[in-house]
Amino acid sequence: MIDPLTKKADRVILGIDPGTNVMGYGILGVYGKKPAMIAMGIIELSKVSDHYMRLARIYDRVRMLVEQYCPDELAIEAPFFGKNVQSMLKLGRAQGVAIAAALSHQVPITEYEPRKIKQAITGNGAASKKQVCEMLVRILEIPRESLLPKLDATDALGAALCHFYESGKPAVSKSTSWKDFVARNPGKVRGL
Amino acid sequence: MIDPLTKKADRVILGIDPGTNVMGYGILGVYGKKPAMIAMGIIELSKVSDHYMRLARIYDRVRMLVEQYCPDELAIEAPFFGKNVQSMLKLGRAQGVAIAAALSHQVPITEYEPRKIKQAITGNGAASKKQVCEMLVRILEIPRESLLPKLDATDALGAALCHFYESGKPAVSKSTSWKDFVARNPGKVRGL
Repeated sequence: MIDPLTKKADRVILGIDPGTNVMGYGILGVYGKKPAMIAMGIIELSKVSDHYMRLARIYDRVRMLVEQYCPDELAIEAPFFGKNVQSMLKLGRAQGVAIAAALSHQVPITEYEPRKIKQAITGNGAASKKQVCEMLVRILEIPRESLLPKLDATDALGAALCHFYESGKPAVSKSTSWKDFVARNPGKVRGL
Repeated sequence: MIDPLTKKADRVILGIDPGTNVMGYGILGVYGKKPAMIAMGIIELSKVSDHYMRLARIYDRVRMLVEQYCPDELAIEAPFFGKNVQSMLKLGRAQGVAIAAALSHQVPITEYEPRKIKQAITGNGAASKKQVCEMLVRILEIPRESLLPKLDATDALGAALCHFYESGKPAVSKSTSWKDFVARNPGKVRGL
């Protein structure tokens, strides 16, 4: 297990799941080719009754995260469909202030649908929150106890990990070196 | 007509109509009890194809307006109902980044439904854009020629004026000074 406190990450990805009641976040560090969790948490919004105070809290918190962890990228969990227009407007605003906080620090943003995140982490786009959590525990070698009380943050950490997989894909598949080809296709290479 | 360039406003209200294709803005100055337009304009977004670039432009522009005109309040035109969830999510994001720009400068926000704005300006909640424009020309004594090419900004200027009327209501009616009473009710005061 990598200790993010003692080792500097080559790349930092901030994952965010901006809901209107709870906002989850996860900070993923990439060390060489290995991802590891640096931090994760939730911001409780349900106790804040004023709509603007909620948006202000999301904005301030995302800005603080950006300033504290200096992420290279932001991955945001963004559902494109919802129950009704009212809830989508509210969700859009929550996403909007989080996006603004990243934009104000020139952090590039990529968004992923929940299905895409679940697919990338578990191989099943319809996986449950708990299944996603279980895979994060295994892949990132996080103690299960530290993740369970923050279940709402798993989607955010999942978004960051999904972005790591997605952004890493082309670089890996485009590799054309002979050494790589041999490694990937042992059957095709005859002994010299 | 008040010249906002030569006189300092007692209060400045920024009105915003954040759409996904065009964002309108209007700056209203209050001089004593009289409102006057300081500036108005539109930000064309339809030519910007990237969604995040559009949000970034809204965010940057609103922040610039806040920094340039130091508004005391922000009035935002905010429809609560829309055609579909997709468009409402986009609208919510546009509103969200504009709100974030105001929040980052601690500018208090009030939102008004389009119907409410039309009602406050023209007395008819179902008034057309042109009718609203016509009333703004009369109330704010703006040359019609300067308003017509920026029709999309009238909703924003309307939001600011609506906020001026709404926020002024209690203060005016609560006034209990003798001088004010005499001024408002000349017929009720007998010569001493």
